[in-house]
Amino acid sequence: MNIGKIIGTAVATRKDETLLGCKLMITQPLTMDYKEIGEPVIAVDTVGAGIGEVVIYTKGTAARNAARKRESAIDMAIVGIVDNIDLYD
Amino acid sequence: MNIGKIIGTAVATRKDETLLGCKLMITQPLTMDYKEIGEPVIAVDTVGAGIGEVVIYTKGTAARNAARKRESAIDMAIVGIVDNIDLYD
Amino acid sequence: MNIGKIIGTAVATRKDETLLGCKLMITQPLTMDYKEIGEPVIAVDTVGAGIGEVVIYTKGTAARNAARKRESAIDMAIVGIVDNIDLYD
Amino acid sequence: MNIGKIIGTAVATRKDETLLGCKLMITQPLTMDYKEIGEPVIAVDTVGAGIGEVVIYTKGTAARNAARKRESAIDMAIVGIVDNIDLYD
Amino acid sequence: MNIGKIIGTAVATRKDETLLGCKLMITQPLTMDYKEIGEPVIAVDTVGAGIGEVVIYTKGTAARNAARKRESAIDMAIVGIVDNIDLYD
Repeated sequence: MNIGKIIGTAVATRKDETLLGCKLMITQPLTMDYKEIGEPVIAVDTVGAGIGEVVIYTKGTAARNAARKRESAIDMAIVGIVDNIDLYD
Repeated sequence: MNIGKIIGTAVATRKDETLLGCKLMITQPLTMDYKEIGEPVIAVDTVGAGIGEVVIYTKGTAARNAARKRESAIDMAIVGIVDNIDLYD
Repeated sequence: MNIGKIIGTAVATRKDETLLGCKLMITQPLTMDYKEIGEPVIAVDTVGAGIGEVVIYTKGTAARNAARKRESAIDMAIVGIVDNIDLYD
Repeated sequence: MNIGKIIGTAVATRKDETLLGCKLMITQPLTMDYKEIGEPVIAVDTVGAGIGEVVIYTKGTAARNAARKRESAIDMAIVGIVDNIDLYD
Repeated sequence: MNIGKIIGTAVATRKDETLLGCKLMITQPLTMDYKEIGEPVIAVDTVGAGIGEVVIYTKGTAARNAARKRESAIDMAIVGIVDNIDLYD
C-alpha cells in the first residue's frame, strides 16, 4: 500500500454503474515523510476520508475488495486514515 | 483510476474476438490540472465517450469488469466522462 | 493496451509447458506516432502477427484470456494487428 | 519479489476491517547489494519481521495469499526475512 | 514476459510456507541485446535454471501458475531458459 493526501474530488455524471455512489477522491501520493511524489490519482473512498486527510490507498483487486464491489470498475481505493507514521533510523 | 483525454482511435481488423465491437480509443493521460503526462494508451470505451473528451480510465480486471467482458483481452477501459475536477489547497 | 512493433523472436527449448506451441515475439513498444519507447518485451502471438508488423498487446490476465490459456505462464500477448491509428488535434 | 528494509510502522485507527490486526510495516526497497532505491511502501507483515530487518516482500494477489486474507485490502506483504543474498559474478 | 540473467540466490529461513522448497533466484533484467537494465529481482525458478543462465521470467498470477502454486506468495517466476533471441532490422 501507499500513503497519499486527499486534495480534491472528481465528478463524472456519465460513468460505469459500479462507480455510482462512490466518492472519487483525488489523492496526491506522498513519501513517508509527507512530501508530494508522482501524480495524483483517483481513488474510491471506503473509510469516510475527507479533503486534506493523509490516507492509505491500495490498488487492483485489493481496491475492489475494500469497496466490497469485486465486479466493479474500481482499481484504486482509500482503505485507511493515517494517525501516524513512525520511522526509526 | 486516472484521467485522460481521448485523442484518437485505433483500427485493427485482425484482432482477438473478444475485442470485436469494442471502440479502441487512444487516450492521452492527463495530470489533474489537465496537462499531458506520459504516453497515450489504448482504452476500450464503455460509456460513449468521444474525441476530445476528458475521461476516467481504469486498468486490469477493473477494465474487463467495466466492459462486462471478464474473459476478454481488455486491460484498460474508459469508465467515466469527467464533469469537473475540484482541487482544494 | 499498448502498441508495439514485432522485431524478433525468442527461442527457449526448456520452458514452462504452458508456453509450448506459443510464438514468443520480441515486441518493441511504440508511441502512437510510431516512435520506439522503452524496452522490448516478450509477448505471445495470438493473431498470426509477423516480423515488422505493428500490433496491439495486452498484459496480465487479459493476455492469458487472449491466448485461451488462463492457467498459463503468459503475462503478455499480442491481440491485434494495427491497420491505422487516427489522431485528432 | 523484491527485498526491502523495515524502517517503521504506520498506524491507522480508521481503516478497512480486513486490515484489522495487520502490522503495517514501512518498507524501504533495497537493491540486492542493500542500497536504498525508490520510495518506502506499506507492507503487511506475515512472518514476524521487526524494525531494521531485511525482508522479502511481494505484491498483489500474492500478498493477500501470504496474509491468508484473499478478500482483503492488502496489496503488499512481507513474506520472508533475508538470511543472505549470494551474488556470483 | 522479460528476459534476465541469474546472478545469485536469496536465502530466507523464516518465510511464508508457500515459498518452502522454492529456489529464490536473483535475476538481473536484461535488454534484448543482453545489456543490464533496472534492478535485480527475486524470481522463483520453475525450469531448473542455474547461475549465469539467461532466462525468461513472468509476473503476477502467471508466476503462480508456472510454479503450480496458485495460492502462494510468489509474484515472479522463471519460466524458460533462452536458447537465442533473433532480432530482425
